[in-house]
Amino acid sequence: MSVTQVIRNVRPMGGPAQDVLLDEQARIAERVPAGTAPATLPTLLDGQGQLLLPALVESHVHFDKTLWNTPWRTNSAGPTRWHRITNEHGVLKNLEVPMAQRAGPLIEHCIASGSLYFRSHVDTQTVWGLQHVQDMLALRAHYAALIDLQLVAFPQGGLLTAPDTTQLMEQALELGLDVVGGIDPAGIDKDPIRHLETVFAFAVQYGRGVDIHLHDLGELGRWETERIADMTEVHGLQGRVVISHAYALGAFPPAELEPLADRLAALRISIMTCGPANVTVPPVAMLRTHGVNVCSGSDGIRDAWSPMGNGDMLERAMLLALRFGWSKDEDLLAAFDIVSHGGARALGLTGYGVDVGCAANLLVLPAENVAAAVIDRSLSRTVISRGRIVARDGVFLRN
Amino acid sequence: MSVTQVIRNVRPMGGPAQDVLLDEQARIAERVPAGTAPATLPTLLDGQGQLLLPALVESHVHFDKTLWNTPWRTNSAGPTRWHRITNEHGVLKNLEVPMAQRAGPLIEHCIASGSLYFRSHVDTQTVWGLQHVQDMLALRAHYAALIDLQLVAFPQGGLLTAPDTTQLMEQALELGLDVVGGIDPAGIDKDPIRHLETVFAFAVQYGRGVDIHLHDLGELGRWETERIADMTEVHGLQGRVVISHAYALGAFPPAELEPLADRLAALRISIMTCGPANVTVPPVAMLRTHGVNVCSGSDGIRDAWSPMGNGDMLERAMLLALRFGWSKDEDLLAAFDIVSHGGARALGLTGYGVDVGCAANLLVLPAENVAAAVIDRSLSRTVISRGRIVARDGVFLRN
Repeated sequence: MSVTQVIRNVRPMGGPAQDVLLDEQARIAERVPAGTAPATLPTLLDGQGQLLLPALVESHVHFDKTLWNTPWRTNSAGPTRWHRITNEHGVLKNLEVPMAQRAGPLIEHCIASGSLYFRSHVDTQTVWGLQHVQDMLALRAHYAALIDLQLVAFPQGGLLTAPDTTQLMEQALELGLDVVGGIDPAGIDKDPIRHLETVFAFAVQYGRGVDIHLHDLGELGRWETERIADMTEVHGLQGRVVISHAYALGAFPPAELEPLADRLAALRISIMTCGPANVTVPPVAMLRTHGVNVCSGSDGIRDAWSPMGNGDMLERAMLLALRFGWSKDEDLLAAFDIVSHGGARALGLTGYGVDVGCAANLLVLPAENVAAAVIDRSLSRTVISRGRIVARDGVFLRN
Repeated sequence: MSVTQVIRNVRPMGGPAQDVLLDEQARIAERVPAGTAPATLPTLLDGQGQLLLPALVESHVHFDKTLWNTPWRTNSAGPTRWHRITNEHGVLKNLEVPMAQRAGPLIEHCIASGSLYFRSHVDTQTVWGLQHVQDMLALRAHYAALIDLQLVAFPQGGLLTAPDTTQLMEQALELGLDVVGGIDPAGIDKDPIRHLETVFAFAVQYGRGVDIHLHDLGELGRWETERIADMTEVHGLQGRVVISHAYALGAFPPAELEPLADRLAALRISIMTCGPANVTVPPVAMLRTHGVNVCSGSDGIRDAWSPMGNGDMLERAMLLALRFGWSKDEDLLAAFDIVSHGGARALGLTGYGVDVGCAANLLVLPAENVAAAVIDRSLSRTVISRGRIVARDGVFLRN
């Protein structure tokens, strides 16, 4: 494989300054001490001693819901999750701006923030039919040269309780959605076992992974977590299941959850948490100590649920650290791991990282080290996708 | 009073576009519809329709502790508050960078983020003697033309238990510190009534306000809050007392605290919360509904306690909103009020705001409205101090 270009003078993960040589397939071919790469090799970027990180992984987002790139809208959602679900129908139906003009600019903003890997849940329910699915598939095609975008068939309004949803889910999977979604098998669908059986049957039938929104709290949510583990084991879906939010796991003393953590680790079930500050959250440190993979995401970004969010996964790492009171370097590195390698593991990515052989999907920014990058969140970010500079200083480059 | 210059085409608090005329004392003399100010009047800034806000109020910070502008330092603090207090002694004593070269650049960074009013707690204890007090007084003098900086005589290691601290406190107040500090009258000083009697006696003797760090949790912290209210009433210090952190008030159902809230409101005792995500926090919405003034601050910014913090009070408003799950416009406006007018009330500022007669200490930034400013936290901020532009786009102007 021939070397075609070089990123000069960057510090991979805060280590010594190196030149990073890329091959013609935009992979990292070699890393050599800074200043020793051939001067004749075309320079993709002179990093001037900046930090080199892998591009960030946005493991849980709802691009199809966003109001990004539209005028400010006063939030009109009611107090319960069900109110927010139904309120959203009206908000999105009354929008004149098509999804491509909302989610597209948001994707570009996320790219400019340093994320190049995404898992977006796509509303797959009667109210939209297959419209969200088709719009997001079109956006995926549009950005296919820049990002890896996994799409989850997501039964926002319930899988069993809403008419036609199971058929829509099947159609979405046939159209190419990557992951079978689920939501609160008890709290929303009111029939947890049949919900999970349906989700896992789709996963087996279509050869897909599973990603279940689990907001149910306390004992109920813990019980559902155990049932998801059962199903994962029964259907041989080890390493292909994500439980998103899992608020319930924050309701117990961590030590009490250790056997469950060991089981999740053995089944390679990932836990996705955004680290919300106003609800209980999974005990991330304990989970990671027990070998459970943890990833993170923005969840909704400026949508009918909340105006919050900006898709910055470095900010997300900082918010995770704040949520858990982390201040040690090793904890800040854990926060970074969650928004990078943890996401890569949850999404089953290959060739992820800054090692030789990895794809040249990279983030370069000024920071002394990885911990400082999480704290500082410099916006002077250069983003490299597949060996090409696609964003500088927070601006997506339309090249 | 003659008008000397004009800020053209800005939207005060998100209202209609106006020209804001300033007088020779750098106060807002008049606000007229955009485009109607005399063309001959010197233009301080063409706002191009941006939002005009009052400069932000940083109500609780520890500038004297910061490691800002020094190389990254791995956090070495132990697990308890007492460990963190004693760990800090070693960290700061081994620093070769004097306080002026740490706190000075941090103050400039805070100015560039839009804050022009500050209350900084200054360690007043045996380990430092009066060094921190004198260094911070020198910094206050250095930046006196730009900012209002209140200094609190803060007995970090305990008021009664540490030798000489009461004498140091008296000396600090005589040197010109503005506020009498206190800390965990029960948890740190182990003699809550004598601690509070000492603090309030100083306040009466020197004619100063009171600002007490109260980390004590649960029933203990609530009981101390009631005792602070008692002392405020006995000594006639209504409107001059702040309780900082007050974690304990987050340990009870808000309704149970309503009588206490009414009492705090009647005594005009302000509550300062940073909105931390990993401890209980005061029920801010209920407190405000009952008329209690709430302000906020960064607390430590990159110090021996934690590397967290950047002094951005718009980000602080966002973190408060996240902490309380706020998404409605009125709640985001409340978050902004806490980092602006709430701070001004707590610090007893006069002439604060964007109304005619207020000081021209202002923040101009691109945002549709105040709620959006809190969410977006644009760094394209122009900061006006006393009628002069002192920062642009996050850069402090050394003019």
